[in-house]
Amino acid sequence: MAPRVVKQARAERTRAAVMQAAAEVFAENGFSGASVMKIADRAGVTLGGVYFHFRSKEELARAIVAGQPDFVVPTETSRGLQRAIDTTRTWAGQLAENPMLRAGARLVWEQDRFMPAGENSHQQWTTVMAEDLQAAVDSGEVKPEVDIESIARMIVNACTGAQMHSYVETGHEDLVERVEEIWRCLMPALGVSDQCNGVKGIGRE
Amino acid sequence: MAPRVVKQARAERTRAAVMQAAAEVFAENGFSGASVMKIADRAGVTLGGVYFHFRSKEELARAIVAGQPDFVVPTETSRGLQRAIDTTRTWAGQLAENPMLRAGARLVWEQDRFMPAGENSHQQWTTVMAEDLQAAVDSGEVKPEVDIESIARMIVNACTGAQMHSYVETGHEDLVERVEEIWRCLMPALGVSDQCNGVKGIGRE
Repeated sequence: MAPRVVKQARAERTRAAVMQAAAEVFAENGFSGASVMKIADRAGVTLGGVYFHFRSKEELARAIVAGQPDFVVPTETSRGLQRAIDTTRTWAGQLAENPMLRAGARLVWEQDRFMPAGENSHQQWTTVMAEDLQAAVDSGEVKPEVDIESIARMIVNACTGAQMHSYVETGHEDLVERVEEIWRCLMPALGVSDQCNGVKGIGRE
Repeated sequence: MAPRVVKQARAERTRAAVMQAAAEVFAENGFSGASVMKIADRAGVTLGGVYFHFRSKEELARAIVAGQPDFVVPTETSRGLQRAIDTTRTWAGQLAENPMLRAGARLVWEQDRFMPAGENSHQQWTTVMAEDLQAAVDSGEVKPEVDIESIARMIVNACTGAQMHSYVETGHEDLVERVEEIWRCLMPALGVSDQCNGVKGIGRE
């Protein structure tokens, strides 16, 4: 490898290490309890090393919150309604072990401190859910009179609440079950029949 | 009034003032950011005055979280499904102005620090919702095959998430609207017809 390429690869590794450390520190301490110094220590880099990649604690928190949907990639190659279900189940199943997702969950209510006005995790996830549900309407899976925007927003709200309560009650152990329950409750609202048209992952298999 | 009665009335006023001050301090600082000293200062009583009524910061937080359903009393004398809707709407409408409810919302994710194992706001509210929904099933308003426990838990989850997101997006200004939306989405899941059988307060009047 040419020196410039080596240097670039090293810079990318450092950036990733800083992000990872920031996620851990935010997950443990929240936004106000975290400091760039703590993050640098955790990543094993100098303060200058952090600031080379991120201008501030705010920018770090922003990168983590804005990146949430990219951190949740279901292994299934599903579409439409099944994709929406798989995404929420993947998120629920990985939350306890994945610092990026735990940080995202922990930062939810402090977002006004660092996200630009009109941008937040709630809207991001609502958009993701609404796209999948719209695909489900287009393919005839979900009945056309369903208010996709409202249902998408409600799913995101219910998952957020389930996350908080599951954390308090079981340290996130029953979160997948809680998410499956949400989908089960919603099937009639989506006009999906009792047999669920082959939908998987809602605790009825 | 006899002196003993005067004394008792004064003690009750102090206790109420301490609760109110604690709610304000918890709402602003969360559980870990609050101290008994801050609460005493806010209430205008001595530290000893606080400890006469509450043994610890934990006991204060417990009293506020455990009392949440008592702080939400809809003015309507409704029953069943309408009662469940009225309760969530009253909570949503009063949250921004009521320190007791704001403290309850703020303390949700720190509950494991002070609530006894197996007791938390989520379960309290799920019980309240399930009772009203069960009454709705008994009166034939809601179809009998609905899984009341699951729907009740989901409503509480969705309201918790709506509270958090509405806070970030509008400082709780659109919370009533978000709660109405949740109920609107759920009507088909409850087997309530499109005309909503005269149900009020879900944004369809």
